[in-house]
Amino acid sequence: MNNIGLILSYDGSRYHGWQIQENLPTIQGTLQNAARKITKEPVNIIGCGRTDTGVHARHYVATFKTDCTIPIDRVPAALNSLLPRDIVVRDATVMVDGFHPVRSCIKKEYTYVVHNTRYPNPFYANYAHYHIGKLPIDTLQRAANHFIGEHDFASMRSLGTEVKSTVRHVYSFDVVDTEHGVDFVISANGFLYNMARTMAGTLLAVARGAISPDDIPEILESRDRSRAGATAPPQGLYMTNVIYR
Amino acid sequence: MNNIGLILSYDGSRYHGWQIQENLPTIQGTLQNAARKITKEPVNIIGCGRTDTGVHARHYVATFKTDCTIPIDRVPAALNSLLPRDIVVRDATVMVDGFHPVRSCIKKEYTYVVHNTRYPNPFYANYAHYHIGKLPIDTLQRAANHFIGEHDFASMRSLGTEVKSTVRHVYSFDVVDTEHGVDFVISANGFLYNMARTMAGTLLAVARGAISPDDIPEILESRDRSRAGATAPPQGLYMTNVIYR
Repeated sequence: MNNIGLILSYDGSRYHGWQIQENLPTIQGTLQNAARKITKEPVNIIGCGRTDTGVHARHYVATFKTDCTIPIDRVPAALNSLLPRDIVVRDATVMVDGFHPVRSCIKKEYTYVVHNTRYPNPFYANYAHYHIGKLPIDTLQRAANHFIGEHDFASMRSLGTEVKSTVRHVYSFDVVDTEHGVDFVISANGFLYNMARTMAGTLLAVARGAISPDDIPEILESRDRSRAGATAPPQGLYMTNVIYR
Repeated sequence: MNNIGLILSYDGSRYHGWQIQENLPTIQGTLQNAARKITKEPVNIIGCGRTDTGVHARHYVATFKTDCTIPIDRVPAALNSLLPRDIVVRDATVMVDGFHPVRSCIKKEYTYVVHNTRYPNPFYANYAHYHIGKLPIDTLQRAANHFIGEHDFASMRSLGTEVKSTVRHVYSFDVVDTEHGVDFVISANGFLYNMARTMAGTLLAVARGAISPDDIPEILESRDRSRAGATAPPQGLYMTNVIYR
């Protein structure tokens, strides 16, 4: 049996997130239906993480196991011919047997896209968060730096998923000046539920002056979700990389 | 009575084109409802042209007449507060009485966006046309140059709208190399129905080698629609400028 790894990009606007739900369009469900058609087997797609409704992916990794002997270099085109245009398989590889998209992962990267043009750009309605007011890059980077390192991120997540530990290691958190606003590019060994969006929302609270950059260590220490900024809306969030051993 | 001019941008993906149709979402209908709410008058919105289902606008001009005395600099924010996020009013001005968005226009610009990345980018599904294969910029520009000047464009339009003459003056037709493919930027004193999309489709036929660049003068002379390329799909098309006397 072959363990097939796929690299995908998807526009999450039309979907109720990654994870299969009955009678609702999801990325996993749509991809699984396509994979079942090309393999003629009841394959199960495993993804590298659950993205929420409206969240996008530029680089997402999924796998499925199959006895089907379709040549690996034909798999992307075969799947793409059945997939809607907002989900694209960019590459397929035969993985080692033990490879698992979540358990083998050592680093993930999310990018949160903010625009603050004079008027909201209608073409960004589903693809970026609109922020009214200035985005002080240096102040935001100073705030972001406080998240880097190993911390307890209990104050930066939403409840909902049981986890053993709320400690994560943030490797980098870059505040990147863009033509239309700012990108927050965050890499970590793992992300708690809504952690990327809560950190983004906390930086937006810093931009508004509601939180001072140097309050962040104390907010982390407090483990109190109510002290962080609001969860930033889903349409600004993109999974942009996943790194494996 | 004031003649109010608006500059808009809109993402046409969700709409059945500009022009009002009963029980279908249209840009004109959506904007008119918002204008009626803020003026509390049965105003009529007049647009600078009909865009089809799925066609976008980065710069579109519309007007309405009103006795309402809302300060002109507050009009964009008032309308935007009622409009969905995919239609944005960027500016409002009091126009001279005789100004008409179609009759006063001396030049329009459309841009047709093509991408030809290795796999179609899912984020462009509604925002660009995907072309499989090479885009030979120099050859495309040589083809485009044949459209410049005053010509009978009968072979470059779809039937549907009665017009007095099929002669138009194309002022410029630039083939612009972009990061993900090519933009066709076309300005003219006016465009026949589907003329921009037929010229774009003809250039795509040139890219595929189905039409030679130097066949274009003869295709124009023939006035025979069947000799031009297929009408390129709507999602690549943007109204990008309108110039007035």
